[in-house]
Amino acid sequence: MKVVIVGGVAAGATAAARIRRLDENAEIVVFERSGYISYANCGLPYYIGGVIEDPEDLTLQTPESFYSRFRIKMKIHHEVTAIDPGSKKVSVKNLETGEAFEESYDKLILSPGARAAQPEIPGVGLERVFTMRTVEDTFRIKEYISQYRPKSAVLAGGGFIGLELAENLRELGMKVTIVQRPRQLMSPFDSDMASFIHNEVRRHGVELKLGYTVEGFEERDSGVDVLLKDSKPLHADMVILAIGVVPDTHLAKAAGLELGIKGSIVVNERMETSVSDIYAAGDAVQVKHYVTGTDALISLAGPANKQGRIIADNICGGDSCYLGSQGSSVIKVFDLTAAVTGINETNAKKAGLDTDTVILSPMNHAGYYPGGKVMTIKLVFEKETYRLLGAQIVGYEGVDKRIDVLAVSIHAGLKATQLKDLELAYAPPYSSAKDPVNMAGFMVDNISKGRLKQWHLEEAALLPRDGSAVLLDTRTAEEFARGHIDGFQNIPVDELRERLGEIERDKPVYVICQSGLRSYIAVRILEGNGYEAYNFSGGFRFYDAVMN
Amino acid sequence: MKVVIVGGVAAGATAAARIRRLDENAEIVVFERSGYISYANCGLPYYIGGVIEDPEDLTLQTPESFYSRFRIKMKIHHEVTAIDPGSKKVSVKNLETGEAFEESYDKLILSPGARAAQPEIPGVGLERVFTMRTVEDTFRIKEYISQYRPKSAVLAGGGFIGLELAENLRELGMKVTIVQRPRQLMSPFDSDMASFIHNEVRRHGVELKLGYTVEGFEERDSGVDVLLKDSKPLHADMVILAIGVVPDTHLAKAAGLELGIKGSIVVNERMETSVSDIYAAGDAVQVKHYVTGTDALISLAGPANKQGRIIADNICGGDSCYLGSQGSSVIKVFDLTAAVTGINETNAKKAGLDTDTVILSPMNHAGYYPGGKVMTIKLVFEKETYRLLGAQIVGYEGVDKRIDVLAVSIHAGLKATQLKDLELAYAPPYSSAKDPVNMAGFMVDNISKGRLKQWHLEEAALLPRDGSAVLLDTRTAEEFARGHIDGFQNIPVDELRERLGEIERDKPVYVICQSGLRSYIAVRILEGNGYEAYNFSGGFRFYDAVMN
Ligand SMILES: Cc1cc2nc3c(=O)[nH]c(=O)nc-3n(C[C@H](O)[C@H](O)[C@H](O)COP(=O)(O)OP(=O)(O)OC[C@H]3O[C@@H](n4cnc5c(N)ncnc54)[C@H](O)[C@@H]3O)c2cc1C
Ligand SMILES: Cc1cc2nc3c(=O)[nH]c(=O)nc-3n(C[C@H](O)[C@H](O)[C@H](O)COP(=O)(O)OP(=O)(O)OC[C@H]3O[C@@H](n4cnc5c(N)ncnc54)[C@H](O)[C@@H]3O)c2cc1C
Ligand SMILES: CC(C)(COP(=O)(O)OP(=O)(O)OC[C@H]1O[C@@H](n2cnc3c(N)ncnc32)[C@H](O)[C@@H]1OP(=O)(O)O)[C@@H](O)C(=O)NCCC(=O)NCCS
Ligand SMILES: CC(C)(COP(=O)(O)OP(=O)(O)OC[C@H]1O[C@@H](n2cnc3c(N)ncnc32)[C@H](O)[C@@H]1OP(=O)(O)O)[C@@H](O)C(=O)NCCC(=O)NCCS
Repeated sequence: MKVVIVGGVAAGATAAARIRRLDENAEIVVFERSGYISYANCGLPYYIGGVIEDPEDLTLQTPESFYSRFRIKMKIHHEVTAIDPGSKKVSVKNLETGEAFEESYDKLILSPGARAAQPEIPGVGLERVFTMRTVEDTFRIKEYISQYRPKSAVLAGGGFIGLELAENLRELGMKVTIVQRPRQLMSPFDSDMASFIHNEVRRHGVELKLGYTVEGFEERDSGVDVLLKDSKPLHADMVILAIGVVPDTHLAKAAGLELGIKGSIVVNERMETSVSDIYAAGDAVQVKHYVTGTDALISLAGPANKQGRIIADNICGGDSCYLGSQGSSVIKVFDLTAAVTGINETNAKKAGLDTDTVILSPMNHAGYYPGGKVMTIKLVFEKETYRLLGAQIVGYEGVDKRIDVLAVSIHAGLKATQLKDLELAYAPPYSSAKDPVNMAGFMVDNISKGRLKQWHLEEAALLPRDGSAVLLDTRTAEEFARGHIDGFQNIPVDELRERLGEIERDKPVYVICQSGLRSYIAVRILEGNGYEAYNFSGGFRFYDAVMN
Repeated sequence: MKVVIVGGVAAGATAAARIRRLDENAEIVVFERSGYISYANCGLPYYIGGVIEDPEDLTLQTPESFYSRFRIKMKIHHEVTAIDPGSKKVSVKNLETGEAFEESYDKLILSPGARAAQPEIPGVGLERVFTMRTVEDTFRIKEYISQYRPKSAVLAGGGFIGLELAENLRELGMKVTIVQRPRQLMSPFDSDMASFIHNEVRRHGVELKLGYTVEGFEERDSGVDVLLKDSKPLHADMVILAIGVVPDTHLAKAAGLELGIKGSIVVNERMETSVSDIYAAGDAVQVKHYVTGTDALISLAGPANKQGRIIADNICGGDSCYLGSQGSSVIKVFDLTAAVTGINETNAKKAGLDTDTVILSPMNHAGYYPGGKVMTIKLVFEKETYRLLGAQIVGYEGVDKRIDVLAVSIHAGLKATQLKDLELAYAPPYSSAKDPVNMAGFMVDNISKGRLKQWHLEEAALLPRDGSAVLLDTRTAEEFARGHIDGFQNIPVDELRERLGEIERDKPVYVICQSGLRSYIAVRILEGNGYEAYNFSGGFRFYDAVMN
């Protein structure tokens, strides 16, 4: 059996290695356009900032090491230029010699990944306008920085790569501006949760120009002018474009493979394309979203690796299936960690789901053990069914842990109410006896039993301020004095029972405190005294972070 | 409704607070024998070492704060001395005044916890022989240390509390010896995994006297002689007994409640005891083991808190159930983190389960990102069904995360083979594209498909050394030279294909490398060439840690 693989990194190299492990006799040829295989795309931004120092650390394997371990020919600087499914051949160009040749296959794997999206605007090809996908791209940026010592950079795009670059360029002391059309960074997060990310990058001196459309780039004064729609240009010594990625599938298209969203390759659960004996994996393919069941593009290394492994199984006579992607991801944003799994509220609503959320701010570990820090968790679930749809967390230590706990919960089909039952490992340096995830579960449990009725951020401005409702802040007088929402009256929770007389009967009471815990207790006191009371989801802490 | 609660800490205080949230009118009285409520048992060892500095940090609530928030009477220094289920009354003794009185109840909650097991040997009552359960116990130890500046301590017992104390006493510069009858510390771990803990505590200067039976204590030279069976006594300036805990259930026994293991209180899923209107929770009760379904004692704060909350629900008209405990726990042992969930191999075998294991040593995050450290994971699953039974992990960062991921997997009933499908959040500072848990899943997947046949540590000594089998070490010549198992021949994996001639045909090949990965690849090469080959589970790294 002869297997040809297009692209020798996450999905491709994994498939190659696994095929060898399953079939010692297969002939395996991998064509890789760039000069490197098995490279750590995800590490590239950290090489720019000097966090990863040795360029050799960026590649997990070389063609030589791969050959000596797996007897697989890793043909770097070889671009596959066409596929002929009829004759089962690919056309290949040796980019070093210019030589073109054909290579036959019994099975073909397409793992060409995705390329950096390049808007069709003037100046995209300029020398000082970079993108980052390959090791070479990275070296180009690194060399430009060493040689010209740019003092400022504009990053067009504030997603994962843009933010990692922002951090690494700040690390080098550069002035960094992120500009993009969307009004929030990091679209996997709801805009409220993204606020925490905005605050963190601003705190680290990154300037945010959100809601601005880049219309082009122009060289000026040994730098670049970034032309904006309806605003004056930004100037910087260099620009990096990181506005997202597009499946790199012109080959597949030309060969007549069925394509999906943004030209991605359509595959079935076995990762087979529409054409027999051609498989595809990684950033180039369309997947089923694990939560919504709809078609999606999810460009992540974990899924790419898993899919590559599944293809290897199936090529070698197995029957492995990919179950879909749920978009579990995490990013370090300066001191902050931000992580997400499943779908956010915005997308859940777009998908027509009837959703509810809880927002809480537990500490990563027991408060009495030194070093604990608060994280903010937003859990999205379906009303009525309590199906867990997604979670977003921003904080410091322990964020990645809780997102993974929630990722597994989603994968396993647990309901949000079941999170209360999880038995997670607790000792003071690691967690609390009521782990943050359990706590979220308690809250949903209370909602499901009608014991916690909430009001949410988007209702804050709409609350009746005509006296038809009571607006109550149950923090201490000092906390209240430091800042509160207009129109709220202050009764500390511990005084509430004595001061019930101050709260008008037969009017709904909207309650807030700092985190949501004391106001929840107040709500329970009020309801126990015959009031109808609603708890503000997230507390003033959350309100303040998002609004101010 | 009047609720009386015996014990005002984890289960008791949680039940009290929750009852108030569910019922503003209930009368709730909590009797607590010690002088403190809502204290952080789990933090006590860290107060000894000065990690937690302020004694106020040891209590999450005071009777005053609890009253002002919940209108619950927290009667400290009050011991409940008897229960009369017939008249629904408890007898109470005010330990400060000596006054005795009766208190009636509609519902009674027993959350008296467990006391430190005290062996019936001479000298247990000595002034310098301590135990640690309450805040007072802790102050006693702390004061003794401040006053007498002891230079050495013997800890009888090397479980969670013993180890935390060992670390904290070393922190103070004391010479610490742990003595116990079992030949391994930390019984939730299999002895192989416990070796890593032994190495760590020894590396930090703790002396281990394992396999020694303590027969008594004698005061000598302003210190204590710890008398050992068949060995000369140990001498130290102080002794702390931490040989385990026993449910504190003499009250329940006297009242005729049904008792289980070690006198624990038998409860149903609703946490009801055998006597109506009496509930029990926490360290005092017998639970169903979530994995085995058998009766068990699992003394952990998470379960205690959850059970307290469930009782509150049921007392207030709800119908909440406790699903069982799975023993998820974690401990900081100096620089190491050790964590466990479910059952270990030893206990699985004792329970008659037909088990298999995988052992792997992945890094906590991408190797190319600075600071990554290796952890050791042992996964226990049932043969044939691949039911996940338990996991143990020792390592540094990220151990608590993986144990929680596995805890949820067990809770959700995932099979070990399904771990490969989990989509966990990956970025270089947090994980790898193939997360350690996925990696364990790949290995089990391979076992399930006959692609990975293993040999285990206990077989190492039994391997045929008469030439009927080939013993092969596939590390590099340098690694091999640094240490290997007697009788093994060395062929580095990358040379294996060329040197197959050196490996006799028709003989089983037992392969080892450093971590298990290269030997797995060697196994695949061998099997692809017609050999029957077995991979050593855990690699030489594991062998060396356990054996040397
Ligand atoms: C800067 C950066 C940071 C990232 N950080 C993270 C992260 O933290 N976490 C995460 O989960 N994911 C991250 N990703 C995404 C992750 O790297 C990708 O999801 C993953 O690499 C996709 O794997 P793949 O095999 O599909 O494609 P790739 O890894 O991109 O490999 C495709 C290869 O195919 C080659 N190729 C394309 N066309 C041809 C052709 N015609 N002939 C020959 N070769 C061809 C390309 O040169 C490329 O090397 C990051 C990506 C980048 C660029
Ligand atoms: C030093 C130490 C460290 C620990 N570390 C951890 C850890 O890291 N992680 C973890 O999960 N668990 C840990 N635990 C275990 C955890 O603290 C217990 O599982 C949990 O506290 C049990 O809760 P409980 O409510 O059943 O009992 P407790 O919290 O022990 O409370 C019982 C209370 O009842 C009182 N009482 C008993 N009898 C009477 C009576 N007749 N009248 C009045 N009052 C009475 C006692 O004085 C006691 O205060 C640790 C325990 C200790 C002692
Ligand atoms: C380097 C690369 C080729 C390695 O691929 P690989 O050999 O499949 O992966 P690993 O080296 O992690 O090894 C995994 C294999 O070892 C096995 N394994 C791991 N530890 C083991 C152990 N202790 N004992 C036995 N087997 C073990 C696993 O089961 C798996 O084998 P399988 O797929 O046959 O089941 C590939 O991961 C790669 O190119 N990575 C870089 C590109 C990339 O992912 N970029 C994006 C992220 S930055
Ligand atoms: C202090 C103590 C009495 C608090 O008990 P508690 O009030 O039940 O617990 P918490 O303060 O953590 O609050 C949890 C409650 O707040 C709710 N909550 C938490 N955050 C919330 C938010 N942001 N919005 C709304 N509700 C929230 C939870 O749903 C839960 O309420 P519920 O049980 O009614 O569902 C109890 O935990 C205790 O005594 N602990 C110390 C003893 C101990 O556990 N020792 C062993 C470990 S060291």
